[in-house]
Amino acid sequence: MTTDLPAVTVGIDFGTLSGRALVVAVEDGRELGTAVHEYAHGVVESALPDGRALPPDWALQIPQDWRDVLRFAVPRALAAAGVLPEQVVGVATDFTACTVLPATWDGTPLCELPEYADRPHAYPKLWKHHAAQPEADLIVARAEESGQPWLARYGGKISSEWQYAKALQMLREDPEVYRAADRWIEAADWIVWQLTGAENRNLCTAGYKGIHQDGGYPDDAYLASLHPDFAGFTAKLDHPLSQLGTPAGTLSKAAAELTGLREGTVVAVGNVDAHVTSAAARALDPGHMLAIMGTSTCHIMNSDVLADVPGMCGAVQDGVVPGLWGYEAGQSGVGDLFAWAVRTATPHAYAHEARTRGISVHELLTEKAAAQPVGGHGLVALDWLSGNRSVLVDHHLSGLIVGLTLDTRPEDIYRALIEATAFGTRTIVETFEASGVPVEQFTVAGGLLRNGFLMQTYSDVLNRPINVLASEQGPALGAAIHAAVAAGAYPDIRTASASMGRIEREAYRPDPARAAVYDVLYQEYRALHDHFGRGGSDVMHRLRTLRGQADGLPGTAS
Amino acid sequence: MTTDLPAVTVGIDFGTLSGRALVVAVEDGRELGTAVHEYAHGVVESALPDGRALPPDWALQIPQDWRDVLRFAVPRALAAAGVLPEQVVGVATDFTACTVLPATWDGTPLCELPEYADRPHAYPKLWKHHAAQPEADLIVARAEESGQPWLARYGGKISSEWQYAKALQMLREDPEVYRAADRWIEAADWIVWQLTGAENRNLCTAGYKGIHQDGGYPDDAYLASLHPDFAGFTAKLDHPLSQLGTPAGTLSKAAAELTGLREGTVVAVGNVDAHVTSAAARALDPGHMLAIMGTSTCHIMNSDVLADVPGMCGAVQDGVVPGLWGYEAGQSGVGDLFAWAVRTATPHAYAHEARTRGISVHELLTEKAAAQPVGGHGLVALDWLSGNRSVLVDHHLSGLIVGLTLDTRPEDIYRALIEATAFGTRTIVETFEASGVPVEQFTVAGGLLRNGFLMQTYSDVLNRPINVLASEQGPALGAAIHAAVAAGAYPDIRTASASMGRIEREAYRPDPARAAVYDVLYQEYRALHDHFGRGGSDVMHRLRTLRGQADGLPGTAS
Repeated sequence: MTTDLPAVTVGIDFGTLSGRALVVAVEDGRELGTAVHEYAHGVVESALPDGRALPPDWALQIPQDWRDVLRFAVPRALAAAGVLPEQVVGVATDFTACTVLPATWDGTPLCELPEYADRPHAYPKLWKHHAAQPEADLIVARAEESGQPWLARYGGKISSEWQYAKALQMLREDPEVYRAADRWIEAADWIVWQLTGAENRNLCTAGYKGIHQDGGYPDDAYLASLHPDFAGFTAKLDHPLSQLGTPAGTLSKAAAELTGLREGTVVAVGNVDAHVTSAAARALDPGHMLAIMGTSTCHIMNSDVLADVPGMCGAVQDGVVPGLWGYEAGQSGVGDLFAWAVRTATPHAYAHEARTRGISVHELLTEKAAAQPVGGHGLVALDWLSGNRSVLVDHHLSGLIVGLTLDTRPEDIYRALIEATAFGTRTIVETFEASGVPVEQFTVAGGLLRNGFLMQTYSDVLNRPINVLASEQGPALGAAIHAAVAAGAYPDIRTASASMGRIEREAYRPDPARAAVYDVLYQEYRALHDHFGRGGSDVMHRLRTLRGQADGLPGTAS
Repeated sequence: MTTDLPAVTVGIDFGTLSGRALVVAVEDGRELGTAVHEYAHGVVESALPDGRALPPDWALQIPQDWRDVLRFAVPRALAAAGVLPEQVVGVATDFTACTVLPATWDGTPLCELPEYADRPHAYPKLWKHHAAQPEADLIVARAEESGQPWLARYGGKISSEWQYAKALQMLREDPEVYRAADRWIEAADWIVWQLTGAENRNLCTAGYKGIHQDGGYPDDAYLASLHPDFAGFTAKLDHPLSQLGTPAGTLSKAAAELTGLREGTVVAVGNVDAHVTSAAARALDPGHMLAIMGTSTCHIMNSDVLADVPGMCGAVQDGVVPGLWGYEAGQSGVGDLFAWAVRTATPHAYAHEARTRGISVHELLTEKAAAQPVGGHGLVALDWLSGNRSVLVDHHLSGLIVGLTLDTRPEDIYRALIEATAFGTRTIVETFEASGVPVEQFTVAGGLLRNGFLMQTYSDVLNRPINVLASEQGPALGAAIHAAVAAGAYPDIRTASASMGRIEREAYRPDPARAAVYDVLYQEYRALHDHFGRGGSDVMHRLRTLRGQADGLPGTAS
């Protein structure tokens, strides 16, 4: 510590629409002050800033929006906390991932060079850029054909959201920009570069998004099988990889001027918003699963053991904390499903009642849904309205509701969807355990933990107690914990997490009677899951194919 | 004819909530005047007129409400038509069925005797009284055990709506009223008794609702197997049965005073609203199927051949016209499903748009649903939200929707439900044909024919032209046609129907391109139909059982 005033760290969380800075006491994790900066351009989906239209499924961002978080949110957070720059012993960041951009050797984003400003592929591709599905399909097909050993580490699937699919799309569609990109870099690492002035790469995104396994990237023979000019692609990635929680460097003069922090302040290695939340929630011990529940759910868990868990998104050594295997799994649609129910199956009278009572439609539906016994609605749903990226890893599956009657009400559908996502989580937990990776503790972070009925339902369906993250700022707090470790205030991330993290243990406990009925309903879910997801009926794929051909299908005569 | 003025007949249609009188020219079926009388008590579902509460699923009516139709609607219809009583050569009625009541030997409803006025079982049970399901289950089980030959004529199922289940419920729950009932009579026959002053019974309701087959009712040994005191029940039914379209008698002095018609006017044998509509729609030839489409759909068809058609509601000799086998089949939920979609899956913005544009929500959803290609929504539904009384005859099945995504809109669900009911109709048509009963023509009557998109969809799904009834008053017109036959103006019902009925032939023709895609979707429907309806998965039954136990299921802790 370099000051007599209490030491603090700053965690900076880069989300999809805004960035947040949080000032935290190193001693105990107290949150002293925070500030948010909204990205001026948000998500660039329909057109570039110059008006050039984008194809469907694109999602870009503007690097200057990220710098503006450093410029505006950090000083405001310091002011809100009432701390001096000299109290700040470390800074750390976390980012959405895989959000990735092409840059020059000095870290300049290609989109900031005048000659590329009108080229969509020169811009950072946000995690939810979904236009590279053909490339992802090819990546998986070629990996299967050539028996790539790393494929099993990703549950047999490489996502269209990750570094290779997005880069291959760039090569296919704009080879000039591809060639101009000296570096292909995660925003998680690029922002650290902005802070320190030097390139640094972290093990987490390299492992989960960059297919870095057992010390290396996929080889050139495999890359050439994707596209002749894709051989050599990993040279754009190549760089020593840093352990999480270590210093990436120190704050440059320019970054100090931008943020109001002192030059030379320790900057931690980059990290991912979901993964860093594990530190905030004290969910780092082997077998402690963290579910970050929002529009989708991301599951993060450390383990001593490496196993092929069907459908996991990735298993990466040192991927969450040094010394353990970090697993990531997920459900592609969770809160999204409840939002669908609100916009699709909420009649006028419900909207009116919610408005009159001054509550949200979600709150109203939850209240009505909660006022019925388990099994009372007679429904079971499959939670695949946004596909399945869990055990089945099949984005072309779709949702199903069975048991509908003329008495089925909107709150019944809403509740059935909540239960379906809980059944989906149970499927993931059971798959981990069946694969030899025990799940000992279950903790929830994310926006959905505000819904007490939903949380109780998860506890009943899982038949486990559920802990909750006891901070509103999980990712930023997690980053601040990493900053404290990088600054040397704690010997390692787990020790820092134990002091600075915030968990409410057993906030929800299962009710044995409800759990018994949910056991019965879960068997129904699993039977439908296997019938529609494992080849008993391929109707979902056929309907999707038909729907995909809709432009060529006959319309209705007027 | 007894007058120089043009001869007319009066058809009187007794519906669920009101009765309608229609004055029709005998020569060509021109509709000259009509009047409606709403039942003062409507459907008695929650409490008797004296305030005594009724159990769930009960549905009663008040006989005086029916008499009031004779008293008010008939004179008003004559006045509206500008005809004199002496022009009226015949009167005929049609009624909902099975609507049935206990009466004394002189036709007095038991509920009109002071000593029984507070006894629910003394009142007429409306067709949709659904509290006798346990009795129906017993009736079927015992018939299967003892191999009753008539069971196959009803597709293997006797409905809880029919005469035996309702009577057995009365015996079990109020044996005193059961014993006091000298007669157990269809309202279709009771109303004729009010007109002529003498009991008369028709072949149609005896066959379809009274298990009268091959000249007799079920025997006492079978009846005793249901309940020791149920032996002898058919004595309450026993009476010569009259052919449809023949005179039941003539108008009594009292009825003449009530209606303003002349004493001695011919009164036709009673009939059922659905069956009599076949005459109005000129749908009496063998192989001409009439679908009366409303909240549910009833299919009526004559044939030269007798066959066991799976799931048909009944096959009755002379049941629609003398000399042919009359088949009845049905779909238990059709318009009901669209109403469910409107009250469940219509968001505020849609209700607002419909109101602003001055159209109904049904019209808005239809318009939006129509503006997409076949298969564009990616959904298939099973139309069993009200159970299945078609080929599967299983009221404990439930609805299903598959193919849901976050992009699924209310109009997609609405359209999928329309298509599902069309697939259900196609299943019935194909089942008739596979059973050796050809379907040559398909004609639609009922409220849903106003929805042109729905009608075109049925034509495309069936891949057949569809004719429509060209009268707004199908049942009353059909009754008026029967009156003309009973009065001797035509030699038989088919001849009268050809002159007086109204059909628009091939109002809808299938589009080959759409029909081809619907062929594909129909295969998906049939696969789901068989999987969930024929034992592949019994999940619907299990969910229903669980739902039925809901009162004993654990609720959610507050």
